Amino acid sequence: MKLLTYKTETSEPRLGFIYNKQIIDMEDFGDISNFPLPSDMLELIDMGFEVIYEINNLIEDTTEKQLAQISYKMEEITILAPIPYPRKNIIGIGLNYTEHVAESARTLDTAKELPQQPVIFSKPPTTVTATNTDILLNRNLTNQLDWEVELAVVISKKGKYVSKADALDHVFGYTVINDISARDCRRSGQWIVSKGQDTFAPMGPIIVTKDEIENPQNLDLSLKVNGIEKQNSNTKFMLFNINDLIEDLSTVFTLEAGDIIATGTPAGVGAGRNPQEWLKDGDIIEATVEGIGTIVNTVKEI
Amino acid sequence: MKLLTYKTETSEPRLGFIYNKQIIDMEDFGDISNFPLPSDMLELIDMGFEVIYEINNLIEDTTEKQLAQISYKMEEITILAPIPYPRKNIIGIGLNYTEHVAESARTLDTAKELPQQPVIFSKPPTTVTATNTDILLNRNLTNQLDWEVELAVVISKKGKYVSKADALDHVFGYTVINDISARDCRRSGQWIVSKGQDTFAPMGPIIVTKDEIENPQNLDLSLKVNGIEKQNSNTKFMLFNINDLIEDLSTVFTLEAGDIIATGTPAGVGAGRNPQEWLKDGDIIEATVEGIGTIVNTVKEI
Repeated sequence: MKLLTYKTETSEPRLGFIYNKQIIDMEDFGDISNFPLPSDMLELIDMGFEVIYEINNLIEDTTEKQLAQISYKMEEITILAPIPYPRKNIIGIGLNYTEHVAESARTLDTAKELPQQPVIFSKPPTTVTATNTDILLNRNLTNQLDWEVELAVVISKKGKYVSKADALDHVFGYTVINDISARDCRRSGQWIVSKGQDTFAPMGPIIVTKDEIENPQNLDLSLKVNGIEKQNSNTKFMLFNINDLIEDLSTVFTLEAGDIIATGTPAGVGAGRNPQEWLKDGDIIEATVEGIGTIVNTVKEI
Repeated sequence: MKLLTYKTETSEPRLGFIYNKQIIDMEDFGDISNFPLPSDMLELIDMGFEVIYEINNLIEDTTEKQLAQISYKMEEITILAPIPYPRKNIIGIGLNYTEHVAESARTLDTAKELPQQPVIFSKPPTTVTATNTDILLNRNLTNQLDWEVELAVVISKKGKYVSKADALDHVFGYTVINDISARDCRRSGQWIVSKGQDTFAPMGPIIVTKDEIENPQNLDLSLKVNGIEKQNSNTKFMLFNINDLIEDLSTVFTLEAGDIIATGTPAGVGAGRNPQEWLKDGDIIEATVEGIGTIVNTVKEI
């Protein structure tokens, strides 16, 4: 399914799905199907992944006319971040593409050697913002604002010591995150001020459930600034693939339903360029992952 | 007020307060006072700090006999962490006491110079555990498990760009956190694997609301391992005091009701000793902050 969180001019945030290029409200769909469904993404995830197959079956049993009655056109709604407020900080993975390790070692203070274990950091829930919103640039904090397109994995259920073989069973779906990073904000080497400022995690536009992504390790991902391509790679170049990450992360932490893992960015960030390039007021950033979509955000100096 | 989260043999987690050395259930107290009160700490915080004064007034209007009917003896309940599952990662502050900066520079890889800005990291909600529970030592991850007693500040309401002068207005109360740290788990310098493993944030035993702490910058804090004192200092020696921290943190992030700030540990950690000392299976750690209480935890190798 292609799931999203949206609002209309008058509504609170609602859960919906895309069907025939229209938005169907999930709770309303549950009502006409006599199958109670929630109005919130995290509540849907909490129902277990099987609910996705059930909903797909119910859609087949529903007429076009019935669906039309609970649907919106794209232009009638505003897309919000698919999980507007995660239950904990987003789990970020650093230095997970070879060439990004190299460019970071040249221009930041990270090591030249490939990491032997996933490098982990976090981004608070307050970093999350939707497509078509502003990324806030506070010049009192940073003059080195940078971009990072990433595939993000949404976790379906609680797991501790999950093996690589079982990892996919713990995946709910995939979305796009732009892991905005203020390079000059590290403190005693820690990245949370660099990565954790408000609006530094544009996310969306939708979550595509895992059954619709044939191979998450073969997705093109790319990023443009003001229409000019800056990053272009493929998830097959991850150092630690999604199964590796879930095994490792679930050894350290208990993973939980709704957890979000931003799996790292490929080469082409502003810090790695010669000369270096930093985002400025008015810049438009488009971050795309194949099969999921594009999130577009504008930098706004505050 | 002295607030806690507790359960009885048969109940779910409940919110309570200590009165005459007994536990009064908060929701039940609301019922007898005709003033609806929640059964969850975060819901109470969301009501705004004024509710604490209202509850105190209501207690004065209540007879001992009425209170006795909704009270438990300490031995009848189990104390849980005051906020068993925070809404985001705990905000940790590193290197916030001069002598701890010195001992860390000697034995870890941190700088000798005092930090110019607060050093920030995070601990996921899954690190939280109560007093009288086990701290899990996974030898596959670490052989350098260490202790850190800290004063923790609980935030009362949303705030961005909070000035030092207004900072106390954003405080709900105080608790104790033992910021358990696996020194050999840093990855590319990041501390989240060191600080973020399950059970690495023993918290409690209670939250003391700010009106009952005359000066949070003059509290003794200490820690014992197997009865032997390892840390003993006072919160007046913080490099960045609570007002400084709230001003700085709220510049980086939007602070929110229920956020928890662990304000850093003084000297005396195991990593700073000669020879270094690491926690092992069966060790009993007592972490105390004056005016709040002591949390006791046992290390359990898994």
